[in-house]
Amino acid sequence: MRDFSRGPEHLAINQWTTRPWSLEQAIEGYARHGVRGIAVWRDKLAELGIARAVGMLKVHDMTVTGLCRAGLFPAADDAGRRAAIEENKRAIDEAVAIGARCVIIVGGGLPAGSKDIAGAHAQVRDGLAEILPYARAAKMPLALEPLHPMFAADRAVVNTLTHANDLCDALGAGLGVAVDVYHVWWDPNLEREIKRAGRARLLAFHVCDWLVPTTDLMLDRGMMGDGVIDIRKIRGWMEETGYAGFSEVEIFSARNWWQRPMDEVVRVCIERHRTVV
Amino acid sequence: MRDFSRGPEHLAINQWTTRPWSLEQAIEGYARHGVRGIAVWRDKLAELGIARAVGMLKVHDMTVTGLCRAGLFPAADDAGRRAAIEENKRAIDEAVAIGARCVIIVGGGLPAGSKDIAGAHAQVRDGLAEILPYARAAKMPLALEPLHPMFAADRAVVNTLTHANDLCDALGAGLGVAVDVYHVWWDPNLEREIKRAGRARLLAFHVCDWLVPTTDLMLDRGMMGDGVIDIRKIRGWMEETGYAGFSEVEIFSARNWWQRPMDEVVRVCIERHRTVV
Repeated sequence: MRDFSRGPEHLAINQWTTRPWSLEQAIEGYARHGVRGIAVWRDKLAELGIARAVGMLKVHDMTVTGLCRAGLFPAADDAGRRAAIEENKRAIDEAVAIGARCVIIVGGGLPAGSKDIAGAHAQVRDGLAEILPYARAAKMPLALEPLHPMFAADRAVVNTLTHANDLCDALGAGLGVAVDVYHVWWDPNLEREIKRAGRARLLAFHVCDWLVPTTDLMLDRGMMGDGVIDIRKIRGWMEETGYAGFSEVEIFSARNWWQRPMDEVVRVCIERHRTVV
Repeated sequence: MRDFSRGPEHLAINQWTTRPWSLEQAIEGYARHGVRGIAVWRDKLAELGIARAVGMLKVHDMTVTGLCRAGLFPAADDAGRRAAIEENKRAIDEAVAIGARCVIIVGGGLPAGSKDIAGAHAQVRDGLAEILPYARAAKMPLALEPLHPMFAADRAVVNTLTHANDLCDALGAGLGVAVDVYHVWWDPNLEREIKRAGRARLLAFHVCDWLVPTTDLMLDRGMMGDGVIDIRKIRGWMEETGYAGFSEVEIFSARNWWQRPMDEVVRVCIERHRTVV
């Protein structure tokens, strides 16, 4: 395994970890602390503008580990499905423009009023099949991120790495996976499925921690080391499989970390990356 | 599929659905509305006493669909593990005494301070292996209930029907499963795993609904029909596999149903059982 104890060389931060910061503040802030990887959110990118973002990323020698996020395919009608496809293509365009390593894809939840989860699974598969030729032509990998099953209703109906790997098998080149420990740590098949994915499909590795108790389904993720996830074991499985990319901190924490000074958050991310990840 | 529209013949209620009621109130209350199945909790049973409970259940012609609950095997040390085994044997004794159809088993979460989920999986397997001879001798089936993955840290490390079926395969006679739609509805392999379980292993079927949004991980379950679960489809898979037992309502709802008059809760359970389940 790579030695993370010396510094933040392999550390990236997903900008929602420092959500109060603009993209400009995040790029400058991470760089100020020696962090050279960032995952960018589309709404923050739109605020700053593509050209300015590209310039700042270059000046600060920042790698974009992923653009968040696309997918979100299931819709109640054809117009909604077509709109989702177009939105995905725009996300791919933006990812190319800023030199992102991948586009993070979440499946999307049930359409409003629907109880048809099998239908939503099919819409995710069909939507991915439709955007993949565009992504391949743009040479932009799509990283399908299984979200925790507690998000199946409203955010993502792809909830296990097994399901994501099945979709990769079915849909072929251009599609890989993002492994976020928060979503998959509980899965007894996790090691098997990371190895099944293989080096070529492992496009991103996200870390945070599962708190006990967890007081909110969406916005109560913990800092690495504050919860129950054996992050280093999972990183070991990633690296045994050949993953050599960044370890990206992604923490949504409305009650704790978003309330603190953002420079403190970055400092703690760096410290925990050295000692816990 | 069985026709539930005529009345509550196949309806059972888990007494935590009417948690403000004592066991005495629950037996009388359910019977007053024509409900003839109840799942009993051990703490409520202890309050009433075994002999009085047996008498009341008989007078009201009430079937005990399950005794909640045992399992909870993982512990930090040997003394804790031995105590859990003994507690499970006491639960089996009580289930026999009140004529329950099964004991509901939840795996148990990580011991305090532990990040070793693989170790917890092993402790659940070993604990089940140790109590199964006792359960077989008592002719009391153990119904292993996979809980939603959001409970992996603090309540149960068996989170899918696949995992529960694997344990049944490994451990043999005496162990079956309880299928609660709340915990498994999101699983793309659910139909396959219900059929894999087969008639003999399907010991219980629990219903409620997944609300959007869900505001609490533990105590915000919804009444059937108020959420996104296609309950009837899942019941169909159960019955195609030969399940002919009760459909048991189990709703933990601190903010809504536990605040209402309990007779109203029972009435709504009956109505939704007829129209949605």
